[in-house]
Amino acid sequence: MPDHNQPVNRRWTLTARPQGLPKRSDFTYATVPVEVLQDGQVLVRTHYISLDPAMRGWMNDARSYIPPVELGEVMRAGAVGEVVSTRNPRFREGDHVAGMFGMQDYAVTDGSGVQTVDAGLAPLPLFLSALGMPGMTAYFGLLDVGAPQPGQTVVVSAASGAVGALVGQIARIKGCRAVGLAGGPEKCAYVHDTLGFDAVVDYKAEDVGRALSAHCPDGIDVYFDNVGGAILDAALARLARHARVVICGAISQYNSSAVEGPKNYLSLLVQHARMEGFVVFDYASRYAEGMQAMAGWLKDGLVKSREDIVDGLETFPETLLKLFSGENFGKLCIKSV
Amino acid sequence: MPDHNQPVNRRWTLTARPQGLPKRSDFTYATVPVEVLQDGQVLVRTHYISLDPAMRGWMNDARSYIPPVELGEVMRAGAVGEVVSTRNPRFREGDHVAGMFGMQDYAVTDGSGVQTVDAGLAPLPLFLSALGMPGMTAYFGLLDVGAPQPGQTVVVSAASGAVGALVGQIARIKGCRAVGLAGGPEKCAYVHDTLGFDAVVDYKAEDVGRALSAHCPDGIDVYFDNVGGAILDAALARLARHARVVICGAISQYNSSAVEGPKNYLSLLVQHARMEGFVVFDYASRYAEGMQAMAGWLKDGLVKSREDIVDGLETFPETLLKLFSGENFGKLCIKSV
Repeated sequence: MPDHNQPVNRRWTLTARPQGLPKRSDFTYATVPVEVLQDGQVLVRTHYISLDPAMRGWMNDARSYIPPVELGEVMRAGAVGEVVSTRNPRFREGDHVAGMFGMQDYAVTDGSGVQTVDAGLAPLPLFLSALGMPGMTAYFGLLDVGAPQPGQTVVVSAASGAVGALVGQIARIKGCRAVGLAGGPEKCAYVHDTLGFDAVVDYKAEDVGRALSAHCPDGIDVYFDNVGGAILDAALARLARHARVVICGAISQYNSSAVEGPKNYLSLLVQHARMEGFVVFDYASRYAEGMQAMAGWLKDGLVKSREDIVDGLETFPETLLKLFSGENFGKLCIKSV
Repeated sequence: MPDHNQPVNRRWTLTARPQGLPKRSDFTYATVPVEVLQDGQVLVRTHYISLDPAMRGWMNDARSYIPPVELGEVMRAGAVGEVVSTRNPRFREGDHVAGMFGMQDYAVTDGSGVQTVDAGLAPLPLFLSALGMPGMTAYFGLLDVGAPQPGQTVVVSAASGAVGALVGQIARIKGCRAVGLAGGPEKCAYVHDTLGFDAVVDYKAEDVGRALSAHCPDGIDVYFDNVGGAILDAALARLARHARVVICGAISQYNSSAVEGPKNYLSLLVQHARMEGFVVFDYASRYAEGMQAMAGWLKDGLVKSREDIVDGLETFPETLLKLFSGENFGKLCIKSV
């Protein structure tokens, strides 16, 4: 057994199932001793912890693509950090690693699902955005599920968000027109001027249907949906023949007790179009391909990534809400150290 | 110009856009002289006229896969009949033909979209069912859009209807399990005992969700939807991984002013599944393949077809309603001669 003083761990556990928007009282914040490592285990100090819309789904007691977070369990979250102690030969002290380390300062893991990352390649928070789950989500969701062809029109909602921003930039790399939806002038300017989308719709200020019609005169070939609700319906009404609708998320619906179904789904029939969902974990065997592509595009300046980093693990419940109010600007994460 | 006494034509024109269920006063029934043939035209006497759920959509003034029926125009309908006079070298007097001849005794056509049919192959009404649009819809919708694999579970709604009955039978020919939904004990017995589906759910008497769970213990691989609404939602909640949902129609929604969207569409995300629509006309270039397959299966007794034939063109508005009440039993058509 390694001889060192065990550090203490601040952590957030889920202690009630949220109704609607999650609130501070649904969680418990506590300081506990770090467990002593068993053979095969690794102790990771988290540096940046990811906040993702999907976390809302994990809080529900419902069948899904992964089991829900149990009451009393540390809130599940992706994170990037550093190995501080190891009894697993796959890892060395000082390794930078990414994995589902949870909303806490220290994680003890057997290493399953943990990736060693090259901290020389990019700043650590990028392993939670372009070089992490959002990057893989955008890459495989757009290219594999959406299958855009050069010259086609790709529309993406939440276009200034972690996934949406990458979807539009990859679409342009592949020779497509990229049209983004974002909320407010600052985010819209970022999407158009900084990220280089061909057009942007301010869903808070414009008539979304009319704006999409104006920006997509030949219809929408690929619609990459992160939001659901009225925006999904507006896109469905404007599909081109053989369009693909990629269902990546539905942030407008995650805090509702009753999901609003897409009323315009019969556009799929009229346009011989398809709507297809996916979960990034389905592509785990191909992450190396996605990482290599994203790293190359970042290096060449073809893809830009923006992080919205909030200081302090203790802010978790309020920081999480920024996702649902649209207040975050770029990939939201907590700096825990 | 041919020398014959011009017959008179009884016909139904659309004269008001229906609100909700179509009613007799939305149409006008009149007897008019048959037009004199111009060069290149053909005069067809309709014998059997098809009644299809899609007709409801054609009555709306809305953008769709084909233009709406204009007010004052003969109500669009598929039909099979006989050439009684021709000034078009593609056709001879006495030829049996199928086409969009409309809800009338006589149609004058330039022959576009008109198929000559072999009346020795099958009774004429079959060219409106297994050997007509419903046959092509089932064949291409299931095999091309649904892409079922042997051993998989195929669920179809409106399973005693023109399309649904064929979908389940083709699924079985392809080595799948077929589960049908139908309304009432008589239709359910027909689907199970006569058509040979593996299981049937009486949606009027059973809890559809529970019954689907019982009959599809490994989930639904292909759901072929003709109805929309609550049954579509029950199927979505039970999809297997990588399932395909084929959107063929939504008869439960056609007379509603507001379509009910599928609330469970996020199952597509969780199960990495897809929902895809189609219109049979998209497959026009492959009808020969479909016709050959269907004719072979009919001849070998592998596919059974049932027609619900109503006498008298004058019954059209009331006969049409049988589709929406579920009162028809088999492919609904009007015998017009």
